[in-house]
Amino acid sequence: MPEAFTYKDAGVDIDAMNRALESIKESVHRTFTPAVLSQLGSFGGMMALDVSGYRQPVLVASIDGVGTKVRVARMMGQYRVLGHDLVAHGVNDLLVQAAKPLFFMDYLAMSKLEPQVLQEVVEGASELCQQLGIVLLGGETAEMPDVYMPGEVDVAGCIVGIAEFQQIPTPSRVQVGDAVIGIASNGLHTNGYTLARRVLFDIANMRLDEPLPEVGMTLGEALLQPHRPYLNAVMPLLEGDVIHGMAHITGGGFYDNIPRALPSDMRVVIDRRSWETPPLFTLIQQLGNVPDAEMFRVFNMGIGYVLIVARERAQDVLTSLQISGEQAWLIGEVQRGSREVQVI
Amino acid sequence: MPEAFTYKDAGVDIDAMNRALESIKESVHRTFTPAVLSQLGSFGGMMALDVSGYRQPVLVASIDGVGTKVRVARMMGQYRVLGHDLVAHGVNDLLVQAAKPLFFMDYLAMSKLEPQVLQEVVEGASELCQQLGIVLLGGETAEMPDVYMPGEVDVAGCIVGIAEFQQIPTPSRVQVGDAVIGIASNGLHTNGYTLARRVLFDIANMRLDEPLPEVGMTLGEALLQPHRPYLNAVMPLLEGDVIHGMAHITGGGFYDNIPRALPSDMRVVIDRRSWETPPLFTLIQQLGNVPDAEMFRVFNMGIGYVLIVARERAQDVLTSLQISGEQAWLIGEVQRGSREVQVI
Repeated sequence: MPEAFTYKDAGVDIDAMNRALESIKESVHRTFTPAVLSQLGSFGGMMALDVSGYRQPVLVASIDGVGTKVRVARMMGQYRVLGHDLVAHGVNDLLVQAAKPLFFMDYLAMSKLEPQVLQEVVEGASELCQQLGIVLLGGETAEMPDVYMPGEVDVAGCIVGIAEFQQIPTPSRVQVGDAVIGIASNGLHTNGYTLARRVLFDIANMRLDEPLPEVGMTLGEALLQPHRPYLNAVMPLLEGDVIHGMAHITGGGFYDNIPRALPSDMRVVIDRRSWETPPLFTLIQQLGNVPDAEMFRVFNMGIGYVLIVARERAQDVLTSLQISGEQAWLIGEVQRGSREVQVI
Repeated sequence: MPEAFTYKDAGVDIDAMNRALESIKESVHRTFTPAVLSQLGSFGGMMALDVSGYRQPVLVASIDGVGTKVRVARMMGQYRVLGHDLVAHGVNDLLVQAAKPLFFMDYLAMSKLEPQVLQEVVEGASELCQQLGIVLLGGETAEMPDVYMPGEVDVAGCIVGIAEFQQIPTPSRVQVGDAVIGIASNGLHTNGYTLARRVLFDIANMRLDEPLPEVGMTLGEALLQPHRPYLNAVMPLLEGDVIHGMAHITGGGFYDNIPRALPSDMRVVIDRRSWETPPLFTLIQQLGNVPDAEMFRVFNMGIGYVLIVARERAQDVLTSLQISGEQAWLIGEVQRGSREVQVI
């Protein structure tokens, strides 16, 4: 007979996980509002639903990961950004549908649970949730020694919000001649990391601590810049009918994301000289000899979020965004075409 | 200069992913109801929220994975069960709070995207969603060659439902003398797979195709039995005040899950002879020489869901569960104590 065998021997330490969960309770509770009816550790998170003020309330939800930005976080030993980015990414996805986020839930899995990693991820998520008035309603952690590479971590997050049906932009609002406004991103956000890492580390043999004078920080720092949430800058613009369409520039870049806002008989033409491509993208393109079209398909190229607005309101929108602290440019226009994006 | 470098070269094929997404559209659409306002591929899934009939509507949400059951699915080359189990697990978590599930979202990540895996997982989720009237509102797939072991997959799912505040059981309803009813599980469900795999494969060197005569199937089949959803059997019992508390027996087994339903001055005493431990658990315990307490902490031991009910209503509840097609037993009672479970 073998020795007595417990779950801990098999690589899973339930007690260590419980201790880590205890340590994150405080960060989670900081996001709680009087609407939260559950405690951490209940089977489901519970939140009183207040639909007063909504004529036709719509639930909007999104689930996402942060791609292989988790690898860079691991290399840098910095995990707060992962939690922050899950929330920011979800917030922006909801914003495209004019939804106000209500709550967020995270999933974190590793080969072997490291309480510090869990703690930092949850703190990063909690901090942004607090800033934006989102409840961190629950989460799940998993130790999976045979699924994840030793030391590796993956994270995913689900966000749920509420929108007023009449405020949700539909492609039918978009008109030929509408202006396309781009809001500045803050680095790669959460897309293109597999390509970026191959080029920077495998092809160019760069190191994380290598200073990038043109960026003003090290390569590692530049790659870990947080995904920018546009909620506070864009939400005030959703009253009235100024905004005809929106797109969050994520996986699939300009080509896959902007068309989602378009009717079938229109295209968007983007003038890439209307803003300056941030140096990190230029570096990746040069070192990897990556074709232009591929760059705009994989990366945000300095534009994190796109608004399609009536031409005559474009300047007001730009001014409003700048007052909110965003950099924004008129980057293109809507023309007749077949639901596509052309970058010239 | 290196050769022109694209995302595909870096191990991520956006086109292949798009093709796979296309192939799952149909399964997803089968779960759509008139309340769904979004199309597959929009930034956020959208669902009209109907709170008519609710006096104090509460949103209830849960996020979960299926643990290393993903390893067994991989070994068997069968992935439908993963999607099914994500939904079933979430449904049961919500049920504990008396919530009717509204929608589900899945996250699937692999070292290298295999369209068949994605397709099967989504089909499994879609099928159970359809059966239970849940919308598969969205999902996310990720290819992460450096994070996941070659060929490995992980899945997570988020489920959101709605409950009537007054129907949500609270520990204050539980009374000394209440009966504890256990509903039969269908195998390991989604917990304890790391321990089970170590014992069965590493210690006992068993093979997946090894027949288990006492179970009536092979070991692989037994390990891949689907997580049972209790929604349809338990929901009708939630009218009135028959149910004082509930617990979904998941990670942490009896000891961590049942106390969540208890007030601080009561305990539950479980008589393990009141049902027959299914042979798969006995096999794992014997082969691994796993202590009793560890078995009840890691596995469901044949009980997937627990109801705490007024003693005088216990027989009615058992009858109702049996009519709904569940096996169920009176397995214990509530006594004075300090929010703990004793298995005798």
